[in-house]
Amino acid sequence: MANHKVICIARQFGSGGREVGQKLAAALNLRYYDKELLQVAAQKSGILEELFEKNDERPASGLLHTTLGAKVPSYAEYAGFMPNDQMQNIIADVIREAADEGPCVIIGRCADYILRGREATLSVFVHAALEVRVQRIARLHNLDEDAARSLIRKTDRSRANYYSYYTDRDWGSADNYDLALDAGRLGVERTAELLCRAATLLFQ
Amino acid sequence: MANHKVICIARQFGSGGREVGQKLAAALNLRYYDKELLQVAAQKSGILEELFEKNDERPASGLLHTTLGAKVPSYAEYAGFMPNDQMQNIIADVIREAADEGPCVIIGRCADYILRGREATLSVFVHAALEVRVQRIARLHNLDEDAARSLIRKTDRSRANYYSYYTDRDWGSADNYDLALDAGRLGVERTAELLCRAATLLFQ
Repeated sequence: MANHKVICIARQFGSGGREVGQKLAAALNLRYYDKELLQVAAQKSGILEELFEKNDERPASGLLHTTLGAKVPSYAEYAGFMPNDQMQNIIADVIREAADEGPCVIIGRCADYILRGREATLSVFVHAALEVRVQRIARLHNLDEDAARSLIRKTDRSRANYYSYYTDRDWGSADNYDLALDAGRLGVERTAELLCRAATLLFQ
Repeated sequence: MANHKVICIARQFGSGGREVGQKLAAALNLRYYDKELLQVAAQKSGILEELFEKNDERPASGLLHTTLGAKVPSYAEYAGFMPNDQMQNIIADVIREAADEGPCVIIGRCADYILRGREATLSVFVHAALEVRVQRIARLHNLDEDAARSLIRKTDRSRANYYSYYTDRDWGSADNYDLALDAGRLGVERTAELLCRAATLLFQ
């Protein structure tokens, strides 16, 4: 099996992690997968892309979570019984195939966990201070600050639940990642440049 | 007040974080403070250096912790009543003075928190997979693997408690730090090189 360079980027909402990934992919001439994973998953499975989008980076159905309260059931307990899990299985296959096909950057979707143990993988977490992200999201989504703050909290909670549900790890705990960077402090450009350097050092 | 470059390095026990700090200090011509902080604290305060060493990176006396069980009392609740807190206050003063005196690398001792908000500070967490650290500590301290594993768990638990006690933050949570790096995966040399690059980019 080919052992292409793959850079997995988990990111806090509004941290600029996606932009970092795009710059990195452009600089190192890597394919870039973000929402593109959902398109491929839809094509492969025949399931509507809208359904993948609706369930993107969510742990399970809202109804089930409401019923069970804060306790998120383990993947093993429910594997195969919930559409979200089946869809995540398809996404995981798409991620493995993307990594086999060629060097790439993959944003979110537990890619770091799905590709764990794979040698030529660099696993990254991009974060930024809440207030930096509030400013960024307010500007990008044309929201007032309170609405931006609320959207950030909701999206990050969903991403954290999704990640811990499928990986049994804590999202954003430094020791899950080869590198974690504050893109608010460093800036998107410098974050991408440092990652470029890290990839070059690690994969040379 | 002078705004010298200061790099604060928190590190898991056995991760090679100290060696990373030494290489970084040598490469960037920065002063290096690890146990040296304790020497200065002893000179300043007249308290025996051995006492600073005995309490180094510990949250409070073992007896108090045993009595209170898992709940660590907040710093505010006990400030001024325990020698550890008084000694931590002295260490904090030494850290602030070191940062005022000239560019430096400071290892551990909540320096990232003590110097928070200071512009020319780069805050770093160095970690490595447990098994990598077991091998390293077994070799360096001439221990068998079980003894090394046990020493690592105990030391990290102490550092985590110490950090959360004095900062009300989670030790090792990526978003506390500008950069977090897996020195086991990247290697000590490459970790130091990346930090060198980060410092150059940030402070240029």
